[in-house]
Amino acid sequence: MEVGCIGLGQMGSGMAESLLGAGHEVTVYNRTRAKADALVAKGAKFAASVADACRGDAVLTMLANDDVVEAVVYGERGVLASLAKGAVHVSSSTISTKLSERLAADHSAAGQHLVAAPVLGRPSVAAAGKLAVVAAGDANSVRAVAPLFDAIGQKTFIISETPKDANIVKLSGNFLIAAVIESLSEAIALIAKAGIDKRQYLDILTSTLFDCPVYRTYGDLVVRGAYEPAGFAASLAHKDIRLALAAAEGLRVPMPFASVVHDRFLALLAQGGDRLDSSAIARLVMHDAGLH
Amino acid sequence: MEVGCIGLGQMGSGMAESLLGAGHEVTVYNRTRAKADALVAKGAKFAASVADACRGDAVLTMLANDDVVEAVVYGERGVLASLAKGAVHVSSSTISTKLSERLAADHSAAGQHLVAAPVLGRPSVAAAGKLAVVAAGDANSVRAVAPLFDAIGQKTFIISETPKDANIVKLSGNFLIAAVIESLSEAIALIAKAGIDKRQYLDILTSTLFDCPVYRTYGDLVVRGAYEPAGFAASLAHKDIRLALAAAEGLRVPMPFASVVHDRFLALLAQGGDRLDSSAIARLVMHDAGLH
Amino acid sequence: MEVGCIGLGQMGSGMAESLLGAGHEVTVYNRTRAKADALVAKGAKFAASVADACRGDAVLTMLANDDVVEAVVYGERGVLASLAKGAVHVSSSTISTKLSERLAADHSAAGQHLVAAPVLGRPSVAAAGKLAVVAAGDANSVRAVAPLFDAIGQKTFIISETPKDANIVKLSGNFLIAAVIESLSEAIALIAKAGIDKRQYLDILTSTLFDCPVYRTYGDLVVRGAYEPAGFAASLAHKDIRLALAAAEGLRVPMPFASVVHDRFLALLAQGGDRLDSSAIARLVMHDAGLH
Amino acid sequence: MEVGCIGLGQMGSGMAESLLGAGHEVTVYNRTRAKADALVAKGAKFAASVADACRGDAVLTMLANDDVVEAVVYGERGVLASLAKGAVHVSSSTISTKLSERLAADHSAAGQHLVAAPVLGRPSVAAAGKLAVVAAGDANSVRAVAPLFDAIGQKTFIISETPKDANIVKLSGNFLIAAVIESLSEAIALIAKAGIDKRQYLDILTSTLFDCPVYRTYGDLVVRGAYEPAGFAASLAHKDIRLALAAAEGLRVPMPFASVVHDRFLALLAQGGDRLDSSAIARLVMHDAGLH
Repeated sequence: MEVGCIGLGQMGSGMAESLLGAGHEVTVYNRTRAKADALVAKGAKFAASVADACRGDAVLTMLANDDVVEAVVYGERGVLASLAKGAVHVSSSTISTKLSERLAADHSAAGQHLVAAPVLGRPSVAAAGKLAVVAAGDANSVRAVAPLFDAIGQKTFIISETPKDANIVKLSGNFLIAAVIESLSEAIALIAKAGIDKRQYLDILTSTLFDCPVYRTYGDLVVRGAYEPAGFAASLAHKDIRLALAAAEGLRVPMPFASVVHDRFLALLAQGGDRLDSSAIARLVMHDAGLH
Repeated sequence: MEVGCIGLGQMGSGMAESLLGAGHEVTVYNRTRAKADALVAKGAKFAASVADACRGDAVLTMLANDDVVEAVVYGERGVLASLAKGAVHVSSSTISTKLSERLAADHSAAGQHLVAAPVLGRPSVAAAGKLAVVAAGDANSVRAVAPLFDAIGQKTFIISETPKDANIVKLSGNFLIAAVIESLSEAIALIAKAGIDKRQYLDILTSTLFDCPVYRTYGDLVVRGAYEPAGFAASLAHKDIRLALAAAEGLRVPMPFASVVHDRFLALLAQGGDRLDSSAIARLVMHDAGLH
Repeated sequence: MEVGCIGLGQMGSGMAESLLGAGHEVTVYNRTRAKADALVAKGAKFAASVADACRGDAVLTMLANDDVVEAVVYGERGVLASLAKGAVHVSSSTISTKLSERLAADHSAAGQHLVAAPVLGRPSVAAAGKLAVVAAGDANSVRAVAPLFDAIGQKTFIISETPKDANIVKLSGNFLIAAVIESLSEAIALIAKAGIDKRQYLDILTSTLFDCPVYRTYGDLVVRGAYEPAGFAASLAHKDIRLALAAAEGLRVPMPFASVVHDRFLALLAQGGDRLDSSAIARLVMHDAGLH
Repeated sequence: MEVGCIGLGQMGSGMAESLLGAGHEVTVYNRTRAKADALVAKGAKFAASVADACRGDAVLTMLANDDVVEAVVYGERGVLASLAKGAVHVSSSTISTKLSERLAADHSAAGQHLVAAPVLGRPSVAAAGKLAVVAAGDANSVRAVAPLFDAIGQKTFIISETPKDANIVKLSGNFLIAAVIESLSEAIALIAKAGIDKRQYLDILTSTLFDCPVYRTYGDLVVRGAYEPAGFAASLAHKDIRLALAAAEGLRVPMPFASVVHDRFLALLAQGGDRLDSSAIARLVMHDAGLH
């Protein structure tokens, strides 16, 4: 397929590379050009503007937050103004359910289609083409872009015909990851102060009931206290918890664990931790326990 | 080995059966005799008293809480008074670190040995001999009872020479399980109110980052709202969180997630939920969200 | 002074009546006319539209939330379009700091002035002209409308020249009230389950360290379990906590107590308690404790 | 009356002085003698042992925690062994409801009487004889020691005939104070980061809805950041929250605010803040907000 890729951060670059690797015609756009060059070297076409990236059958956006998505979609010569009738906007950014709803309505009014398709997995997983894709949108559109999902991910889960459903699944998933970091950190602070080896403790967990990637990946970061460079930045993780809580607010769902981790991220950012990895909330847990 | 088994609840019975299956000479004792009979039918010897169960190389206790363990160990003709010099008390009950310390000191003073050996796994896992054993005690004693661990579990993790270390690992593990139940319940309340299918949601989680027994087992209970009969009773789960918090208190480790789940369990018990499964705190999460 | 009053709920009506009582020329507007009639009978002029209420030296708005304020200010023939140059918009509604900032900028661009002047006190206090006014805005404008503040309140506190500062003081104050309700409810649940008389307990508190209106007023509601009719509706209290948390989010201030009460209000609303008094979160505290 | 005073910390000394001032015959005992000397200079008799302080009609104990009370009461030649039949033990220490129950039973069995009589007020209030006394015990005993209460306090509240009821009232009161510190700290962190003057903010609160000693006293400490020397040490405040939570545990009352402040105190102690004033949890709130 002919597909544009807008947003070439760690995740977006990995996805574009997977699309290239699967033989799609990929046009790439990024606000700062340097990131596009590496992909051009691997066979991508260079787009000088958002509009240039919107000439194909589909455009995939992978951007940092609501504000950036709004600017790219609604700006002059933005995605909405540039995409052909019948073409599909695959929105993989982790955005609010509110913006997702608005995008769906506006694309529909313009004769275009929105498929929300956030992905699960960190950058290293994206680069390997092994993400999981959580997709929602009208059945025809989802079918049309299925080859793209096959390229970027190992598995695609089709949620429903309502795009924002995929966004809320993604947001709730990121909340669950943050809850794992917090709970593991509390447990590790406890056993560490009791004098037990952290690594051995984690090994017990991950070779029994907690034998899954999220405990292995984040447990390792917490045990090593390795919060730089960020695989997934604290500022983004905070944003996602905030959006999960905003969705919960609208649906009237109290989420006390989400409130606790939200407060952790606020504290981390208030103390200048924006660029640390999301797992750095563990540092606050340790600090509260008098561990350094 | 000649081993006594004291405490034949769901977990204790399963463990005794595994010991029998592995060819050990097992003597069983339970406060109410009926539970012993089933094991006698399978080849166990019947003990009419705690003392009768303490005549072998080792005695394994698997009891509900500190009070019961105290009664069994310190009572007239209890374990402490009955066990031979050099014999080992394998304490698999989930008890406080404080009691574990006291048992270690008193057995040592009596020329006996304490090996704390709590296990990970629910009753069905115990019956299948597939538990994981977390053991701590002096190296000779741990080595001496290793054949018992091989019989009841698939894996044994040796933590340290200090028995209570195994207890705190167990308590922190049970806290982590409760944290999984709470976080999953909050996430499921959110997506359910958004109109998304709970089962499909759980399938996405458990086929990606959360592909491990704890999310599968408890996620299934939460999705089905199946809180009876209890695999692991709420009253016991509450006790374990309480003991984890008591250990954290002594070590000065703030654990906000543990505080939240502790309050959940208190609410569940205050409303009469003692005999429900520990996963029934999900019902409170759903109730708070207006879901019934 | 010639002053328009827009928004005649329990608080707005009481304030308009105080202005009339102090001899000001008051023009009243309310979306549903019935509430205006009672004030017209007491000497107010009737305004058929928002614009009609904006012909004087100042217009005072006392409305339910950001959305209503936005509609009244930015609507066709709204406050912004109708107020004379040099006139003052006294905004007493409890609104977000974000909207307050926007109003300040837009009134300024239109040659008008914004004074944010939220008030402290429940409806009975408003009717008695005994509110406290928390005001912020440029010094000249604040001076110009001082006679209005003298009419509606016993005390006026001038915070700063930045209108939104008054809003954040009001929001934080409403958070403190909610924290009093929650903490009192927890304490009362505890002593009530211990068999101690709730009324006597409250009397001890309010005749010692806690001898102030907020403990007397809300303590009485909690002790009586009297949540209807609402003096201050739960839906409004929830909104205020939400806005306080939004301000805290922007300033990066973790507020765990605010998170707890926010979750309480969400649960109350999820269970249909929108129209109960804000003190009805006590009912949830009691329910969690198994008290009915 | 002839009364012994055991425990001459800041509170106990102030109470003994008030008793002397009212003309009672006071015998004083303290583990470290220096504190007794000042009172002897003012007319008190010196007791060389606990037993020496138990020869009168009543003995008043004001000690740091359960352990010290246990040692003083149950030790060899302790209060229980030394007090005359019919004499009254006035227990003013803030102790667990569990220990209070045990004391009541044991004194009763010994033909003695227990009146639990914790007091409300900080040391400066104690020195001025202006404490409030919360008393519980059998009616005759309470009547018998009423002259002592008149000497040490301005008001006496008789709760019930069950001593531990007075203890739970005291514990819940200390929880309410801690909740005031936490909530005020959160509010002050918010307005301070918004650039508003903390002192002015506190003045607004304490001249309106929050016009009572607890907001004035603790608000002033928080605004000044004056946590040394301690009026009421963080380690004691922590103990009281712990005991309140223990009582709540027994009665099955979830107290989320109490859990939050308990975690705050644990963090404060974990970081070495034992000797700071209880209001020093405000420092953690500020730190979390990035304020120093």
